[in-house]
Amino acid sequence: MAASKDRTRGGLDAPPPPPIDGNHSKVIRKAAGAFEWKDVPLEAYKTTTADYKGISRRELVGKRGESTKFHVRYFEIQPGGHSTLEKHEHEHVVIPMRGAGEAQAGCYIWTVGVGDVVYVSPSDPHQFRCPADAKEPFGFLCIVNSERDRPTPVDGLGVCRICE
Amino acid sequence: MAASKDRTRGGLDAPPPPPIDGNHSKVIRKAAGAFEWKDVPLEAYKTTTADYKGISRRELVGKRGESTKFHVRYFEIQPGGHSTLEKHEHEHVVIPMRGAGEAQAGCYIWTVGVGDVVYVSPSDPHQFRCPADAKEPFGFLCIVNSERDRPTPVDGLGVCRICE
Repeated sequence: MAASKDRTRGGLDAPPPPPIDGNHSKVIRKAAGAFEWKDVPLEAYKTTTADYKGISRRELVGKRGESTKFHVRYFEIQPGGHSTLEKHEHEHVVIPMRGAGEAQAGCYIWTVGVGDVVYVSPSDPHQFRCPADAKEPFGFLCIVNSERDRPTPVDGLGVCRICE
Repeated sequence: MAASKDRTRGGLDAPPPPPIDGNHSKVIRKAAGAFEWKDVPLEAYKTTTADYKGISRRELVGKRGESTKFHVRYFEIQPGGHSTLEKHEHEHVVIPMRGAGEAQAGCYIWTVGVGDVVYVSPSDPHQFRCPADAKEPFGFLCIVNSERDRPTPVDGLGVCRICE
């Protein structure tokens, strides 16, 4: 958000930034006042269906030549929207950056906001939701292993193991 | 930050939260108005020396039984402080969460703020700094591979390859 003082060690002002593609050091700039990053396209996560609704994705790190063992993405869910209720062997780390929403993991439903850290363990069915009356989208970083299995939708969760 | 609506699928209010230790789903709660997380201790990163100054660390994910191929930490640098100028084979992804600071990677010195994403590529000498006149600390998430090599301090960087 603050690019005015960029320079080189040798004292040049604002050198041309490195390209966003490639395995070199870089800054991926967030736009001031918006959850958009320079040169990072908005991707519709999935077409809205009965399973998922109003969710988009931006790939921040891991898809442009970087060699990390993890990928960093920014997801945004519109009010009333939700991700798929699904499970997989890989873990999620989710860190809200904008608004608030619900994180369901197994039998727990947590209301989470900016700076909270959600860990979803392997094989735990989970879903993220933005309340219909929310004033802004629920946006969060989602960090995953770069090598990971595909999600499997979960068709209902049966009886709550905590409550029963 | 918003824990009041936590419940279970079965409709119980605010069930006892899962413990922070173990490879199960959990929420690591950020304190309202502070960059502190419940049950996550503050660690002095390194004693202040000529190489590093005024930096602390909180281990958010990866050190308490989680099975991710990455670790998520929160670092904070006090005004006038800085990390070691160092290099290593593993990458850094740094996402500022509080204040602003300088990220040096190779010959580039970027001023970065909340929501920017810094990628430091393998073997690139780098350092993070908080300006002496900053009004608040420079705090950032730092994500690294769980298996990684040790850093090597860099004793000066020689001539700027961009400027020369």
